[in-house]
Amino acid sequence: MSGSTFGKLLRVTTFGESHGPALGVVVDGFPAGVAVTESDIQEYMNRRKPGKNPLSTPRSEGDTVEILSGVFEGRTTGTPVAMLIRNTNQHSSDYEAIKDTYRPGHADFGFDQKYGFRDWRGGGRSSGRETAARVAAGALCQLLLKRLGIDCYAYTESIGSVKIDPSAFERSAITETATGMPDRDADRKAAELVAAMAGEKDSIGGTVVCIAEGMPAGIGEPVFDKLDATLSHAVMSIGAVKAVEIGDGITVSQKKGSENNDPFIPGGNGRIEKKTNHAGGILGGLSDSSPILLRAHFKPTPSIASVQDTVDRDGQAVRLSVGGRHDPVIVPRAVVVVECMCAIALADALLIGMSARADDIAAFYSGNS
Amino acid sequence: MSGSTFGKLLRVTTFGESHGPALGVVVDGFPAGVAVTESDIQEYMNRRKPGKNPLSTPRSEGDTVEILSGVFEGRTTGTPVAMLIRNTNQHSSDYEAIKDTYRPGHADFGFDQKYGFRDWRGGGRSSGRETAARVAAGALCQLLLKRLGIDCYAYTESIGSVKIDPSAFERSAITETATGMPDRDADRKAAELVAAMAGEKDSIGGTVVCIAEGMPAGIGEPVFDKLDATLSHAVMSIGAVKAVEIGDGITVSQKKGSENNDPFIPGGNGRIEKKTNHAGGILGGLSDSSPILLRAHFKPTPSIASVQDTVDRDGQAVRLSVGGRHDPVIVPRAVVVVECMCAIALADALLIGMSARADDIAAFYSGNS
Amino acid sequence: MSGSTFGKLLRVTTFGESHGPALGVVVDGFPAGVAVTESDIQEYMNRRKPGKNPLSTPRSEGDTVEILSGVFEGRTTGTPVAMLIRNTNQHSSDYEAIKDTYRPGHADFGFDQKYGFRDWRGGGRSSGRETAARVAAGALCQLLLKRLGIDCYAYTESIGSVKIDPSAFERSAITETATGMPDRDADRKAAELVAAMAGEKDSIGGTVVCIAEGMPAGIGEPVFDKLDATLSHAVMSIGAVKAVEIGDGITVSQKKGSENNDPFIPGGNGRIEKKTNHAGGILGGLSDSSPILLRAHFKPTPSIASVQDTVDRDGQAVRLSVGGRHDPVIVPRAVVVVECMCAIALADALLIGMSARADDIAAFYSGNS
Amino acid sequence: MSGSTFGKLLRVTTFGESHGPALGVVVDGFPAGVAVTESDIQEYMNRRKPGKNPLSTPRSEGDTVEILSGVFEGRTTGTPVAMLIRNTNQHSSDYEAIKDTYRPGHADFGFDQKYGFRDWRGGGRSSGRETAARVAAGALCQLLLKRLGIDCYAYTESIGSVKIDPSAFERSAITETATGMPDRDADRKAAELVAAMAGEKDSIGGTVVCIAEGMPAGIGEPVFDKLDATLSHAVMSIGAVKAVEIGDGITVSQKKGSENNDPFIPGGNGRIEKKTNHAGGILGGLSDSSPILLRAHFKPTPSIASVQDTVDRDGQAVRLSVGGRHDPVIVPRAVVVVECMCAIALADALLIGMSARADDIAAFYSGNS
Repeated sequence: MSGSTFGKLLRVTTFGESHGPALGVVVDGFPAGVAVTESDIQEYMNRRKPGKNPLSTPRSEGDTVEILSGVFEGRTTGTPVAMLIRNTNQHSSDYEAIKDTYRPGHADFGFDQKYGFRDWRGGGRSSGRETAARVAAGALCQLLLKRLGIDCYAYTESIGSVKIDPSAFERSAITETATGMPDRDADRKAAELVAAMAGEKDSIGGTVVCIAEGMPAGIGEPVFDKLDATLSHAVMSIGAVKAVEIGDGITVSQKKGSENNDPFIPGGNGRIEKKTNHAGGILGGLSDSSPILLRAHFKPTPSIASVQDTVDRDGQAVRLSVGGRHDPVIVPRAVVVVECMCAIALADALLIGMSARADDIAAFYSGNS
Repeated sequence: MSGSTFGKLLRVTTFGESHGPALGVVVDGFPAGVAVTESDIQEYMNRRKPGKNPLSTPRSEGDTVEILSGVFEGRTTGTPVAMLIRNTNQHSSDYEAIKDTYRPGHADFGFDQKYGFRDWRGGGRSSGRETAARVAAGALCQLLLKRLGIDCYAYTESIGSVKIDPSAFERSAITETATGMPDRDADRKAAELVAAMAGEKDSIGGTVVCIAEGMPAGIGEPVFDKLDATLSHAVMSIGAVKAVEIGDGITVSQKKGSENNDPFIPGGNGRIEKKTNHAGGILGGLSDSSPILLRAHFKPTPSIASVQDTVDRDGQAVRLSVGGRHDPVIVPRAVVVVECMCAIALADALLIGMSARADDIAAFYSGNS
Repeated sequence: MSGSTFGKLLRVTTFGESHGPALGVVVDGFPAGVAVTESDIQEYMNRRKPGKNPLSTPRSEGDTVEILSGVFEGRTTGTPVAMLIRNTNQHSSDYEAIKDTYRPGHADFGFDQKYGFRDWRGGGRSSGRETAARVAAGALCQLLLKRLGIDCYAYTESIGSVKIDPSAFERSAITETATGMPDRDADRKAAELVAAMAGEKDSIGGTVVCIAEGMPAGIGEPVFDKLDATLSHAVMSIGAVKAVEIGDGITVSQKKGSENNDPFIPGGNGRIEKKTNHAGGILGGLSDSSPILLRAHFKPTPSIASVQDTVDRDGQAVRLSVGGRHDPVIVPRAVVVVECMCAIALADALLIGMSARADDIAAFYSGNS
Repeated sequence: MSGSTFGKLLRVTTFGESHGPALGVVVDGFPAGVAVTESDIQEYMNRRKPGKNPLSTPRSEGDTVEILSGVFEGRTTGTPVAMLIRNTNQHSSDYEAIKDTYRPGHADFGFDQKYGFRDWRGGGRSSGRETAARVAAGALCQLLLKRLGIDCYAYTESIGSVKIDPSAFERSAITETATGMPDRDADRKAAELVAAMAGEKDSIGGTVVCIAEGMPAGIGEPVFDKLDATLSHAVMSIGAVKAVEIGDGITVSQKKGSENNDPFIPGGNGRIEKKTNHAGGILGGLSDSSPILLRAHFKPTPSIASVQDTVDRDGQAVRLSVGGRHDPVIVPRAVVVVECMCAIALADALLIGMSARADDIAAFYSGNS
């Protein structure tokens, strides 16, 4: 597997399985001089960790992060920041029943086809637990973005048919509600829906929106590493995401050019702004100074207690009810994962963006040498 | 700009501007022994080239491809295959009017912010013409996929509100209709819609679907290089794409697990298959032996002849009507681009997939050494 | 710092500082199905660890390796193998004296220039201790090479003016002698030389040779990733190496073509061999079926107890005697590091080498799908 | 072949075979705003091109470079700069005799083993002609280095036993002498030696030194991408190089620490300098503000007219005299290749070096946004 690293200049490499000794991440290329403590990271870990509210799995993991390297006297040193999260609450026996069976909606079959066998305990490497390592890395990147005046945040936009009312948007609710919705009314309704799903031994999907405000214009690389392309890569790599939209997303395919184009307008202080933001802050793959807006569509949790048809390793039909401890909806805990993956992609793009002009390079080195 | 290369083992690097001397591509890591002629590539180039039907720009480019390297006696040699497409029909003067003005919906502003100035002739590097180089590379990858028994093809699914009728699907229509629709009725209606848009000096969006049949299971890399993540990266890097869906895509966010999960079933000959394919052939980032299905949403062509508000380089408000030669809809010519980007991403994933098991590596080298 | 990863398909990422909590490594892209235990890795760690004989620093580190991921029921799973080595015997106070002073021969000045400050404890990231993580990764790669019938080993060829006698070559001596020399006589003389150097508060350089037998022909990539180029990169990245030679190395610059060319000859069983091996097993960047031979020249340990002239952070002249615990010669402990870096580079090249031919790819997937 | 790209942020991708239609290169990630004309590049091409003096092959190639992209109104735009060199003087029939025979000292055997067959005309991709594309890229990078006040130059230090006298160093002689030696006396002697070798139907090796003055301190990345490691990779990837030394190189293995350490001293204007430069300008993988010094050892041209023993594709012994047009010494034409590969590696390292500190990133974006 050659796919555990994301990013080009700022490179995030994760490791770990759901029921192995630990998960972790190495962030290489992170700049020196950013103040960071384990609590800064832990705050993000806590937003993702299981067992914190009635909507999530009762698996109770501390998800305590330990910084192993790259920080000295409270600041990053420029060398790789490695972070470790020990697994402490594995119930591997829960999974013995499925070790020779392919759970619908999961990667079990693909892993066996690819590697010949798999670590079947809790989904192994393909478990949602793997995202804990991403969150640790993203938390670090958020510290850098904040230093640059960039505000990157995500929230639950919908669960099933329950959608937030944008006019009721209340940012503090994102981290206070069980659903991650910035609308307390919608949160209540969504929580009821999730409870109903759990009662039916079923699960439900939803959407997460991520916004980044304060991005300078011109970030992203033309052609293959357009900012929307790397953001999509980052977010689509989260297990349960099946669609990614930028700005107005899928609705553009039914729009006219005259409706969809965002007029440029004179802003204050000689700045150039856009009158509307159908584009979601990215034009031709480069940031355009409007807020970046990305939406991820999550499928319903594939692990459900209802009986399902499937096959075993030998291809024989079997019936399966997935036991273990599972969230009836992925979205609330995925909010911080989407936010963190976007933060990683943006931070990498910002670092790459520094060497676009020879004048800047010359100024940089004449000042430093 | 450090983003003109796509792929890890099979690496595609493009170059060239709309009104420069030439566009081109270098395909490095392409395996030896694939039979190829310039006509094989030209066939794909012709599907993309402008001026071939009433829906597309009257710019008349031969888009003739020349193979510069990596092919000997009709077969690839394993060394980089470079291909060149000379620009022959530039009307740069068409663009003099916009050299100091930022066209809405375009990357002009971002380029100036990033690089300090830009090649304003025809959009320079951010022109849709850049995709000609991608098509040349994708055509080559299609030859490899075919050799492996994989059938990767794309078609126009909708233009504006006109959508194909799946029950009328006729594959040969894809390359025979002006719209790229595999449904001749829908094609007629869509062509009328496009003509109406052109008459209004406006443009319209649409969707392209790409399908890959015959993919072995287990292709893609867990975590960041999931097959859906690299496909999304590939397709979202096409200029006008604003959303990418895998399988049931956006609809999963309103689905229940019991609806969305695809049961595994015993197939013929000991094979394992899926009863349904909501997942679009990818589970946990690995191919699952069902057809891969991806949908791209294209925005309407941003270049429209209607008068629009915008600003110039100095941030002063100006009014602009974009002249030049433009397609009133991007989708018909983009079909082959989506197909080619998917072919590139799949070919790369297949090459990477060969080294997943030590047994296979040992067998490979004991046979070869 | 964006340079903590080596390799393309098999990617080794290290982290950790000399006096931080831990060192570690993530090996991504390592194939599934290789039997491995912590003892297999520990055996290599022990060859590098300090304090094991009179030639090395009295710092006593257990260098105990813990496998954190990627191994299940005694076999690699194909997911990243992360390994952790806790630091347990730091004497950071030894370094307080040099925190504002630039030690000659060290990276202190460069780190301050690059990052603005540095973790001065024990050299931080630029400490030789960083190589512990490389050894853990290399030990894993050696298991793969052995599976493929490749025997990769290194030894001390010379320390100062004391050189081994090739006719006295005794492989078992490599791991039994204090110097890593495969010649017990030379070992004795070299040990005396090192003792003399230590007595003079000085240090001495030396050379390490690495040999890989059993490499199939055709491994390595033409042009920039020639096998000798990636091996040189791998070995030159070890801190104290100042020259790398392949085969006859520096002597070729005084040779005639008729002397230096290795005639090809018919070998047994239809194999093709070379009569001589001036080339060190690599021609045009590809392995040629003869043993690979590489030589690394190590500088003397820069940390010496003698008084030296240098400057402090403010550029003021100061005199310095480097305290702390240091090896008077780097070479004996570096032998396993060279071996491991070569093993990593070879393993990566072997994985990449699998996709060179379309026929092989087609055979691979027709067998697997 | 996945090895035709060098560099991380500034990425150089070459293509082309000796007797194919053309050679070329794509330089991606090159910053915007560097003034460049085809003549600037041609000047370097002319230093490498064949047939310019009695020491080199009579193959007469114009080696005329055409810039295909990335330059607008005389300046680089930030998009990939592609450059093309057409082959015009191929005598493929010269090589018919060796199409089924493996030339000693060449990659013929390796290519057949790797790819199953090869483009045998003039060595195909493994021909020294491939370096023409590197020179075009390096010429571009030299323009950037000059802009940054960095002077990177190479010269022939020795041919066979004839070595330059450092006290007679005359820089202008480098490009004026047939050998590339900066010492006209040594040049005369070396030219006689080469003529003698040619008379004997033999060839001879030599060394090239490359120096870079004006490099800021702290460039290079700790651990695997140390500046000496990437420079070694770059230079060892030139076909005939068999050893690379940094600074005092191989002599350090016999040195004491007290001899080899370079004392830091106060320089003018608060700068820190080194009293000596045994290290060759690199400590711990980072530039240390002294001149960078690298030496490459080239083997004698393997193509010699003398009769040699070898085998054919079937492994049968045959005798071979290599016809065609060959340089009796590689070094004079390789000087500019070494210089260019170093320039590429240094330019890439300088770009990467910009994002080491969060303060710099914040200052950069607060000034730009």
